[in-house]
Amino acid sequence: MTPGSWPVPEPMLPAGVHPVLADAVRAATAALHAARRAHDRAGLAETVAIGADGTPTMRVDALVEEAITAAAQRHRVNVLSEEVGFLDAGSAVTLVIDPLDGSANAAAGVPLSCVAGALAVDGTVTEALTCWADTGRCWHVRAGDPPGYRTSGRRALDGAAVSLLRPQERNAGAWWRVARRAARVRILSSSCLEAALVAEGATDAFADAGSDTHRIVDLAAALLMVPAAGGAVLDVAGRPLELDPDLTRRWSGVVAATPALAAELAAAIRG
Amino acid sequence: MTPGSWPVPEPMLPAGVHPVLADAVRAATAALHAARRAHDRAGLAETVAIGADGTPTMRVDALVEEAITAAAQRHRVNVLSEEVGFLDAGSAVTLVIDPLDGSANAAAGVPLSCVAGALAVDGTVTEALTCWADTGRCWHVRAGDPPGYRTSGRRALDGAAVSLLRPQERNAGAWWRVARRAARVRILSSSCLEAALVAEGATDAFADAGSDTHRIVDLAAALLMVPAAGGAVLDVAGRPLELDPDLTRRWSGVVAATPALAAELAAAIRG
Repeated sequence: MTPGSWPVPEPMLPAGVHPVLADAVRAATAALHAARRAHDRAGLAETVAIGADGTPTMRVDALVEEAITAAAQRHRVNVLSEEVGFLDAGSAVTLVIDPLDGSANAAAGVPLSCVAGALAVDGTVTEALTCWADTGRCWHVRAGDPPGYRTSGRRALDGAAVSLLRPQERNAGAWWRVARRAARVRILSSSCLEAALVAEGATDAFADAGSDTHRIVDLAAALLMVPAAGGAVLDVAGRPLELDPDLTRRWSGVVAATPALAAELAAAIRG
Repeated sequence: MTPGSWPVPEPMLPAGVHPVLADAVRAATAALHAARRAHDRAGLAETVAIGADGTPTMRVDALVEEAITAAAQRHRVNVLSEEVGFLDAGSAVTLVIDPLDGSANAAAGVPLSCVAGALAVDGTVTEALTCWADTGRCWHVRAGDPPGYRTSGRRALDGAAVSLLRPQERNAGAWWRVARRAARVRILSSSCLEAALVAEGATDAFADAGSDTHRIVDLAAALLMVPAAGGAVLDVAGRPLELDPDLTRRWSGVVAATPALAAELAAAIRG
């Protein structure tokens, strides 16, 4: 079985999604479906460039991003995206997007990858949408509107269910401090899906345990979606999470069911 | 959003599945759907008994298993299942089943849980079926028939993509020895789904890194499915993996793309 054997379904877009976000996500999932039909695992994962974020761009990332930027250009809005960086269309509106969150999953055929975007008007996020590419499930929120989901409300780290980025040598101590206190630890390797699961209360928190891997595009949708559902998003070191065309900036994001849990998790990671 | 908000779809059963397996999986997914409509997270996760495997039975496990055993009784076959243990119907055929693999995921609403079963005739596994409850995706194999999927073929641990059970204090050293050598580590908390992803080549291996958590029902489907696709299933300590009505027996299963990778992974875990 190759990654192309399972279809990429149409996203199940909720009513009222802004046309820019809706078109971008539809274009992205169609491009992912086509890419998985046209290329094998090695072809999807092949490095074709170095992105604006300073990391290698896989072919599958490039193909999906190309479809998204074309959709944004039809709407004449700016784009801030992982590989191409900032594309200025002279608009007040910017589409901030992680074209394919969990690209390694998507290339290998692990069915955990998302297209997650936010719309910013003059620098302020007004709407966010995360779509799980492998199932079509979507999570949507507009600034000021109550979303249709709620976090678990958990306040304490001891006994919590926590998703983490995979451990690396440089943050092994912090990773274990969290893993020891949590009742459950998961590593799904898809930051946007893990943030959506925090937003809907399926898990209590998700964190980069101090490896400074997160870029703003990994967290942009969560910044609106999770606080609207009762949770909090912050950086372990207290750095402000801000939309910035410089995609080489890095954070260690903490996405949690409550502000109290976010603070306790960040403190545990700092040690 | 509650766990009941996302539907549990009908399983996409391949042609030719044995009616006992097909009916058991259909009954299980229908029962899971109903359970998630009827109960909230706390209700689904509530301990209602101690199972034949010696661990607490959640309400959601009990409800799904009840539906499966009723289906098996209609077919007058024996059942070997996590909570009820061995139900002898005097048949040569035994349905060996993990009613709900990834129960904690299922109760919380993390969309990674499976129904995985094997048919054994006079103690030999003849057919296996794993269905991912949240999407309806199924993996099926019959003894002697080539399955429609193939492992990645990877032979070396260094640089492999490895799924692991979550680390515990008692196996932290072994867990970390594997995580250091792997290029990617995931923890999906659903052994049967992780084994299916090894079988279709989306990931290279899945292991219990020496915590002796696996029961035979966690591995029964993989025992047929993974070797048929080119891989191997073994126990870290070399204990024979055998169908046994005593469900308190434990193993540390290693499911890998090749026999070479399985052996190297087991050796790394032993240290």
